Amino acid sequence: MISWNNMDTLASYKELLGLEKVNIASAMSGENGAERVKKYSVPMAAGLTYNYGAKAVDDRILDTLSKLAQEAQLTEKYEALYNGEMINTGEKRLVLHQLTRGQLGEDVIADGVNKREFYVNEQKKIAEFANKVHAGEITNEAGEKFTTVVQIGIGGSDLGPRAMYLALENWAKVNNTLKMNAAFISNVDPDDASAVLRNVDVAHSIFVLVSKSGTTLETLTNESFVKDALAKAGLDASKHMIAVTSETSPLAKSDDYLDAFFMDDYIGGRYSSTSGVGGAVLSLAFGPEIFERFLAGAAEEDALAKNKDLLQNPAMLDALIGVYERNVLGYLDTAVLPYSQALSRFPAHLQQLDMESNGKSVNRFGEPVNYSTGPVIFGEPGTNGQHSFYQLLHQGTDIVPLQFIGFKNNQMENDVEIQGSTSQQKLCANVAAQIVAFACGKDDENSNKRFAGGRPSSIIIGEQLTPEALGALLSHFENKVMFQGFVWNLNSFDQEGVQLGKVLAKKVLAHDTDGALKVYSDLLNI
Amino acid sequence: MISWNNMDTLASYKELLGLEKVNIASAMSGENGAERVKKYSVPMAAGLTYNYGAKAVDDRILDTLSKLAQEAQLTEKYEALYNGEMINTGEKRLVLHQLTRGQLGEDVIADGVNKREFYVNEQKKIAEFANKVHAGEITNEAGEKFTTVVQIGIGGSDLGPRAMYLALENWAKVNNTLKMNAAFISNVDPDDASAVLRNVDVAHSIFVLVSKSGTTLETLTNESFVKDALAKAGLDASKHMIAVTSETSPLAKSDDYLDAFFMDDYIGGRYSSTSGVGGAVLSLAFGPEIFERFLAGAAEEDALAKNKDLLQNPAMLDALIGVYERNVLGYLDTAVLPYSQALSRFPAHLQQLDMESNGKSVNRFGEPVNYSTGPVIFGEPGTNGQHSFYQLLHQGTDIVPLQFIGFKNNQMENDVEIQGSTSQQKLCANVAAQIVAFACGKDDENSNKRFAGGRPSSIIIGEQLTPEALGALLSHFENKVMFQGFVWNLNSFDQEGVQLGKVLAKKVLAHDTDGALKVYSDLLNI
Repeated sequence: MISWNNMDTLASYKELLGLEKVNIASAMSGENGAERVKKYSVPMAAGLTYNYGAKAVDDRILDTLSKLAQEAQLTEKYEALYNGEMINTGEKRLVLHQLTRGQLGEDVIADGVNKREFYVNEQKKIAEFANKVHAGEITNEAGEKFTTVVQIGIGGSDLGPRAMYLALENWAKVNNTLKMNAAFISNVDPDDASAVLRNVDVAHSIFVLVSKSGTTLETLTNESFVKDALAKAGLDASKHMIAVTSETSPLAKSDDYLDAFFMDDYIGGRYSSTSGVGGAVLSLAFGPEIFERFLAGAAEEDALAKNKDLLQNPAMLDALIGVYERNVLGYLDTAVLPYSQALSRFPAHLQQLDMESNGKSVNRFGEPVNYSTGPVIFGEPGTNGQHSFYQLLHQGTDIVPLQFIGFKNNQMENDVEIQGSTSQQKLCANVAAQIVAFACGKDDENSNKRFAGGRPSSIIIGEQLTPEALGALLSHFENKVMFQGFVWNLNSFDQEGVQLGKVLAKKVLAHDTDGALKVYSDLLNI
Repeated sequence: MISWNNMDTLASYKELLGLEKVNIASAMSGENGAERVKKYSVPMAAGLTYNYGAKAVDDRILDTLSKLAQEAQLTEKYEALYNGEMINTGEKRLVLHQLTRGQLGEDVIADGVNKREFYVNEQKKIAEFANKVHAGEITNEAGEKFTTVVQIGIGGSDLGPRAMYLALENWAKVNNTLKMNAAFISNVDPDDASAVLRNVDVAHSIFVLVSKSGTTLETLTNESFVKDALAKAGLDASKHMIAVTSETSPLAKSDDYLDAFFMDDYIGGRYSSTSGVGGAVLSLAFGPEIFERFLAGAAEEDALAKNKDLLQNPAMLDALIGVYERNVLGYLDTAVLPYSQALSRFPAHLQQLDMESNGKSVNRFGEPVNYSTGPVIFGEPGTNGQHSFYQLLHQGTDIVPLQFIGFKNNQMENDVEIQGSTSQQKLCANVAAQIVAFACGKDDENSNKRFAGGRPSSIIIGEQLTPEALGALLSHFENKVMFQGFVWNLNSFDQEGVQLGKVLAKKVLAHDTDGALKVYSDLLNI
């Protein structure tokens, strides 16, 4: 029997508050430090490893975090989720994104259909469509092959798919599996669509309109933009657009589109990269086989999250260490620092995933909670960040926990040796060096050159950023965020905090304003 | 006589701590709210306005902030800076980036030269070079015009110039002043250079190598990468590269470059967008006249920062409100939210500018400070952020101050009307709505739909993002950060916090490691 309790009612949480803190600088020094790094490591899917040697934990704290995982029934709640219980209580919805990539438990029957079969079937339809486009069986009106795919979507319909595309674009080029270039239109700023449309060959482009409800104002506005551009080029828009939407949306059965592919209310936007929302653009860009390999990596990582042993469950472990940092150590932010240029937009995706899921002040029953919830997430690729905001991370007055990601091998064929090492070796040397610099610090007679250390980090290490590794990374963070939501007793799957702005924006556009809102509207010439 | 004192020794700071806090939600309601927004507004350069109606201040607090500005001698310190006193005491350097765009005070003579003349002269040399390239007087070996400029640099040699290029790229296209496309290589990850080189036409590209010292390892590595690519294409690298560096650097008088342009130690990397570091790439991309307009906007804004009246000095006002939020209200983060897709990388530039300048724990004499210093900066363009991390900003357990930026008009020619309004109107309506939603919140029977409000923001509003407006924006934030550094009694112009990682990375590459560092090196296969 599952019970949903606030974190501060749990005995293990109270125990956690009383435990002596770890001095990272001293724990990470000398041979003890070496042993720690070897020991505090757990395998992930697709050859990845989660290493938490430089986190502010020790065996006592990990033991209490294990108790917390049990007392909060984290794996039981995960099981309930993937078996189709109504976990998104606010919106009264199931939470089924894991089913888009695998079957972890029982069949989930909802709305009269087997949901796993539904998602698989849509994926097959997308694969067939993509294969026909690649084979030149589906072409533009002139009978020419499509060369480019342009996603029109915002939020979860943009950030995840875009980050995934960028993560694999160069890998696909060198592996000869880049079938079409992809571009993305998201912002309601008209210059976003204008700039993208100037850069693509619209006559040879397929546009993927992505909106679950079919009513997202930004996305419909950008659709109009694209239709205008197609009309100006003398092209029939309905021969250049497909829709990814829910079956009940106005876009579902429209003649405006070449084809429509479906998701449903049980796939939250920020969890939709493995559904048709990511599936259409990524299958068109890379081919369906690559998208399947991405799903396989995610499925394998999802399965690891079932493990009841905290030390063998990387997502749950990462989640609980994060809770410890947030609620016991009192840190607000987490920086995500991938040492891979291909992951340049992965932090922006995690920013949405995490902050939109757990940036909440009431529990799943609507009662205010008395503890801090989701952290602020930000980040940029290393080594760029090292020459920028790392100054504050090393010597600022506040401590920011760090999430590094690194790969032994780069994606593309070229590398160059200078001063005795390749670029890839320099990249890896830098991330190793940073972890130890943050943890151990360094004393100096000149206090300006002194590093206090004690700045916690973990690192996910992989062989190479492949489709499987990317799927595993994505799943890891989705499940981490889910487990943290369970600990904090939140509903991580709604987003009521985005509604008020929408309501007020409509009032501004209707000139139905007074007070401060009217003054701002006037200042902005609306 | 200037005296450098810690903030917590100042009487006005102690007074500030005792003042009653402002309830933003109530202050911003009704007609009082409207009056506030009208009143709490100050003109900036280039037609911009800084509006702080939705900040947690009132006349009493502003009055005490004025006293703080006087007691901390902020404008006097600024005057000392631009008149050439050694403000960067750690590195024993003057701080002269304002001189790259104007002369605010006395002639500054250093190293035997008039520094304003030196910067202007380098800018002229760059302009002449760019004009010759555009006129086809400087060409590739085949006598063909160069079409692309590629900047090779990292940190301040990358983030600022890249953000400025992106900010004006589309504006330049529609104003027929995009002379050359620009691309940027920064990361030591070999896939960064490989990907850029695959996308540009190297035979028609000029590469701008930017390194003040001429020894930045990432940049020299990427130079090798580019030279390899040029050699493979049968091209003479020395006919395709220019250098921006200091006169004492190994790059200064080398035959490896078509030409070299100089900056000096008095221009910090993160403050170098208006020097040759930004000047070469931006003059080549847009033409020297556009770069001059950008400088003019910055110069005009710099002049406003001299104003001793706090309420007429937007940078100082923004700085002091930020100090109040950081030290009295206790907020760690600031989100930068431009409602302009062209400013997509402006938050990343500000992240470096602010966090590398003021992310420090010792004062300018090397003594630990007892108060919080520089905030964490992050941000993404609205409306994209609204569909992402705004959930936490609205309903999370921590308050994050917000810095909005908006323009009445977009940059490009196209717009589309849907549901009774244009995209640009929707964009502006959204930013107006968000400010009021964050400030005032909304009650609801369903606590999940309740917004507490009380979340402070300011907005910079402009007519359009032109070169002048961009220059003014850049200067505003540079001067804001400078004033905050003065209040906190920091040296905002060094960056010792980035050194330790470099030292340890060298050890890793030399296989001179033990303990935890050796284990991480092994895990990463170095």
